[in-house]
Amino acid sequence: MTFELTILGSASAFPTSKKFPTAQVLNIQERFFLIDCGEGTQIQLRKAKISFGRINHILISHVHGDHIFGLFGLLSTFNLLGRKAPLFIYGHSEIEKILDFYQEHFAKMNNYKIHLHKISKRQLQVVYENKVVEVFAFPLKHRIPSFGYLFREKNRPLNIKKECIGKYNLTINQIKAIKNGEDIITPSGESIANDKLTETPYGRRSYAYCSDTMVSKKIVPYIAEADLLYHEATFMDSERKLARLTGHTTASQAATIALEASVKQLLIGHFSARYKQTEDLLAEARRVFPDTRIAEDLKSYSVPLVRMSRESE
Amino acid sequence: MTFELTILGSASAFPTSKKFPTAQVLNIQERFFLIDCGEGTQIQLRKAKISFGRINHILISHVHGDHIFGLFGLLSTFNLLGRKAPLFIYGHSEIEKILDFYQEHFAKMNNYKIHLHKISKRQLQVVYENKVVEVFAFPLKHRIPSFGYLFREKNRPLNIKKECIGKYNLTINQIKAIKNGEDIITPSGESIANDKLTETPYGRRSYAYCSDTMVSKKIVPYIAEADLLYHEATFMDSERKLARLTGHTTASQAATIALEASVKQLLIGHFSARYKQTEDLLAEARRVFPDTRIAEDLKSYSVPLVRMSRESE
Repeated sequence: MTFELTILGSASAFPTSKKFPTAQVLNIQERFFLIDCGEGTQIQLRKAKISFGRINHILISHVHGDHIFGLFGLLSTFNLLGRKAPLFIYGHSEIEKILDFYQEHFAKMNNYKIHLHKISKRQLQVVYENKVVEVFAFPLKHRIPSFGYLFREKNRPLNIKKECIGKYNLTINQIKAIKNGEDIITPSGESIANDKLTETPYGRRSYAYCSDTMVSKKIVPYIAEADLLYHEATFMDSERKLARLTGHTTASQAATIALEASVKQLLIGHFSARYKQTEDLLAEARRVFPDTRIAEDLKSYSVPLVRMSRESE
Repeated sequence: MTFELTILGSASAFPTSKKFPTAQVLNIQERFFLIDCGEGTQIQLRKAKISFGRINHILISHVHGDHIFGLFGLLSTFNLLGRKAPLFIYGHSEIEKILDFYQEHFAKMNNYKIHLHKISKRQLQVVYENKVVEVFAFPLKHRIPSFGYLFREKNRPLNIKKECIGKYNLTINQIKAIKNGEDIITPSGESIANDKLTETPYGRRSYAYCSDTMVSKKIVPYIAEADLLYHEATFMDSERKLARLTGHTTASQAATIALEASVKQLLIGHFSARYKQTEDLLAEARRVFPDTRIAEDLKSYSVPLVRMSRESE
């Protein structure tokens, strides 16, 4: 039951010798989502040993080069590797022109279809769902239209306590009903509450991605109580003015958002190349939100399954 | 008196976890030329510690993605780093559309000028020269128009043997004349041959770049007697048909070209990802042309200064 984020790039604006531009892969129960696609994404995917065939969904935050200059190379390699499966790309309508240009100049013989889901509404909206996860987009606040993404697991069927099946001589219909959260009535007319029949369920895990954006309280309700929040922290607070001017966030501002949204863990990234070390950025964020970690290229960050307390269901 | 080639990428078609797509930098007496610009070129430039400010000339062989998908990122980073110096790009006219698209979508606030030198003539032609080097383009044979490049040092002024200045009491005008290869006549009427007055000069070093191309004897005169030839060797000879079909060369074919052109040293690259090891490609080429080396990412290959024999001047 994997829920794991792999950072492919944590640099802002341009890569350094150690950090690639923004890209990351989220694996939710073996469904893979590529979030942003900076230059070199396909190289980092190979280094992270993530199979190209697993990538069916690419979510783009905004059309600044450091978030999409890896797209042409990746789309092209998909084709060279013989991809047939359709590819779904999500992002602002501006991406259409970029894909059109790509297809006209570099992909006249593309073997697979690209479907673009254009995002324009400045509100929380579902952009994709499957059996296990819902994906939402929401507006960020940057120099050009920019969107964050929220990934949330769906409710799972409840697990019946094995001993109950024999004890109450459950029928298949009853088992179905119990898995859906219903109580049962025994042949003798006794009502058995669902929580006596089922294991305490696991919580629905969630991940929120916020980059690029300046600090914005409007984001807080979209990402509230996420298990893991990636928030850009391009600058230290000493560069607060520059952050505002360029539409970015400081480490302590990112931590304030994490705190106000009551997320469980904060991951900061998208660091300006001026910071050779990230310790100071981390320390600054931790003063506000202790459970902060640094996003590092090719490292993975898991969200464990945790059983809910029955009270909070 | 540097003459050094640094390989930034030696993969074909798409990168692997170890090899970037095609790009290389040639340093001729501290004049730098970037040849092709595959995805990740700017990352490799940083790793090779080549200052971005030194790159004023980018020569593109052809507009397949694995040779140019790093261009947008590099141009963008130049701008972010505050570049003001004009940039000169050389290649087929198709590049104009690519640059136009880049400038419209990603470089509305570009601080430096980009000059495109369009190459279309199917013959050897000078595309650039400065005090120390001439750069020529010549046609290759690929699925789309593709050009190779030849870099050749210019003749240097001759070095006068120090002892001659006092011995013959040379005037400034005589010194100038001698440096240009002239003989002198002493006040007593004696004629002194130039080669008695000057050090044996160094040879003019040259480098030829041929990628992408299928094997073509027409290339031979363009690259004849180059000190260093980089020739693509995408496949082994067992894939000769596939090489022909895709417009590429095999290792033994590349070596045959090197042999017929009497180059001093051959460097092969642009390897298909199917070859996990390059030993077999090297062995195949060396059976035809022993002085062959493998192009490896982030390795440099120098051409030493060698004094000419006076007979061959």
